[in-house]
Amino acid sequence: QLIAILPGDGIGPEVTAEARRVLETLGLDLRFEEAPVGGAAYDATGHPLPPATLDLARRADAVLFGAVGDSRYDGLARALRPEQAILGLRKELGLFANLRPAKLFAGLEDASALRPEIAARIDLVIVRELTGDVYFGLKSRGTTAEGLREGRDLMRYDEAEVARIARVGFETARTRGGRLCSVDKANVLETSQLWRDVVIEVSVEYPDVALTHMYVDNAAMQMVRDPGQFDVIVTGNLFGDILSDQASMCAGSIGMLPSAALDGSGKGLYEPIHGSAPDIAGQGLANPAAAILSAAMLLRHSLGMAEPADRIEAAVAAAIVGGARTRDLGGTLSTRAMADAILTQL
Amino acid sequence: QLIAILPGDGIGPEVTAEARRVLETLGLDLRFEEAPVGGAAYDATGHPLPPATLDLARRADAVLFGAVGDSRYDGLARALRPEQAILGLRKELGLFANLRPAKLFAGLEDASALRPEIAARIDLVIVRELTGDVYFGLKSRGTTAEGLREGRDLMRYDEAEVARIARVGFETARTRGGRLCSVDKANVLETSQLWRDVVIEVSVEYPDVALTHMYVDNAAMQMVRDPGQFDVIVTGNLFGDILSDQASMCAGSIGMLPSAALDGSGKGLYEPIHGSAPDIAGQGLANPAAAILSAAMLLRHSLGMAEPADRIEAAVAAAIVGGARTRDLGGTLSTRAMADAILTQL
Ligand SMILES: CC(C)[C@H](C(=O)O)[C@@H](O)C(=O)O
Ligand SMILES: CC(C)[C@H](C(=O)O)[C@@H](O)C(=O)O
Repeated sequence: QLIAILPGDGIGPEVTAEARRVLETLGLDLRFEEAPVGGAAYDATGHPLPPATLDLARRADAVLFGAVGDSRYDGLARALRPEQAILGLRKELGLFANLRPAKLFAGLEDASALRPEIAARIDLVIVRELTGDVYFGLKSRGTTAEGLREGRDLMRYDEAEVARIARVGFETARTRGGRLCSVDKANVLETSQLWRDVVIEVSVEYPDVALTHMYVDNAAMQMVRDPGQFDVIVTGNLFGDILSDQASMCAGSIGMLPSAALDGSGKGLYEPIHGSAPDIAGQGLANPAAAILSAAMLLRHSLGMAEPADRIEAAVAAAIVGGARTRDLGGTLSTRAMADAILTQL
Repeated sequence: QLIAILPGDGIGPEVTAEARRVLETLGLDLRFEEAPVGGAAYDATGHPLPPATLDLARRADAVLFGAVGDSRYDGLARALRPEQAILGLRKELGLFANLRPAKLFAGLEDASALRPEIAARIDLVIVRELTGDVYFGLKSRGTTAEGLREGRDLMRYDEAEVARIARVGFETARTRGGRLCSVDKANVLETSQLWRDVVIEVSVEYPDVALTHMYVDNAAMQMVRDPGQFDVIVTGNLFGDILSDQASMCAGSIGMLPSAALDGSGKGLYEPIHGSAPDIAGQGLANPAAAILSAAMLLRHSLGMAEPADRIEAAVAAAIVGGARTRDLGGTLSTRAMADAILTQL
């Protein structure tokens, strides 16, 4: 099977290299091909998502993505900025379902800004819609009747988009605690009212899953007050962007959390939730755990290899319990040494 | 001066009654007139914001608002739901600037889900735009070319809307720590790119204020990691809705936090940030502090009475330090007894 490795910018290359090393160690029948993406691709080719990179991502069975972005590119036109690479990959590959698990690893209770007893209970998955909403609706700059500059972005969803992500939410809840919380702003937005209507319609197919609804402002409060109350959250692209980052920070281990972006057929793009962190790039300081756990998600969701995925996840957990710590976790291990500590547990 | 009291639903009547009592005790030259709003107004007149209520709000020099909402009204058409009353008041009165202070009161260090040493540092104001954004852009339900149900909400801002709220942000920062953080999603949204451009343009008028920019997803993370880093945040209606509730919960004292919604001329609507809490309504369990502090903001911002406003705020702080606690704070005082404890300090 072919894995596309898109290292990207900042610490992306360092952490994907370690994730690749872990995958290679497992002796699975995998081939790897690398291509530039983001700022690195812009520097090399003048575009953050060059045709050859997109082509590789299409050909591959799964994509392991590092990170993109650097303030150096802030001055570029929007279409040339590094972020467009990840938005473009999501759209071109139809990766509509973003799975973002957030949990606290045993041994890292002190890493969260939340009280340890509250943080310890965090174990949730955010299912974020990834190819619709105000992200991809019509955008324009214009002028009002009074001659004022105006910015416009259309928020929109249709019922098919909502139903398919709702199903991912219900299916995910089924494999876990059986509880799904749909987050919207139905008291203000038509998009949200449609969202809520369709989620309720889909729920009849899942009588075994307990469905609740929450407004996004309340969800942002509850995620601080008691994040342990959530099992699976399903929400739109914009609210999911905000809530999933908030949840990751509540869990305290930004350097430890992976994510998956899936199409409907098992194809997926896997990336650590941390960014490119240009300030520590190239120094061997980055924590490779999130990239390594992203590789585990890749095996499970795109290649149907649950057993090696479980082994990787257990090895990361064991390494943390064993005291392995990069700088973000208050330790001194290098990127490479942290990966070694995980490999030792494999 | 005429104060409109709009008690609304749930615990709204109980807490506004105590706030009115505090205002009356101060011996200021104030007149009060009450009118129903929200579900209570719907029950009485068939509309959540009846003409007589809107008329009173227009005539008054300031509005003291309780809370609206109850799941009993969830089945009504959107235009008849209690929330429409507050959205309608904001729009009709041109209350474009929402000031939401969030801070931890001395003595309530244990009320936050954040570690006490992190929570103790919270002292920020969120300046939220309140009459634009996706809240008030064109909304519609329709059908796609394929015959699918579709929901649409237009997110939009023009430069005048952004500039006037930016000025409120800069002015607020000037009276405090001199730091303003503008929150947007300029890497994805045209609306946000305009927002950022205009905030930067306005900043030349305020060379004494240090301006920074943050993406909303990062802001939601930073609000958990270290909310003490913020002085004043200025942001749009939707992001402000989410972040201000998150910030309030970080400060741990939802029952203690007031808010103001101002037009450009000193007219304002003041409300506690807690909701109508139907589950504890009518039982004398609600904390009146947020309503009382809203009355203090009313005196300061709409009536130019800074001195009695300071006195109220000092009395609330002293009552808390003195151990006065309603149930939400882990105590046993009734709504009335809590107000008495505050009045004793006055
Ligand atoms: C880089 C940015 C466009 C992206 C998003 O908003 O989706 C990021 O924040 C994410 O969550 O993957
Ligand atoms: C009730 C609702 C419409 C309102 C809003 O979203 O503005 C509320 O959440 C608030 O923040 O005042």
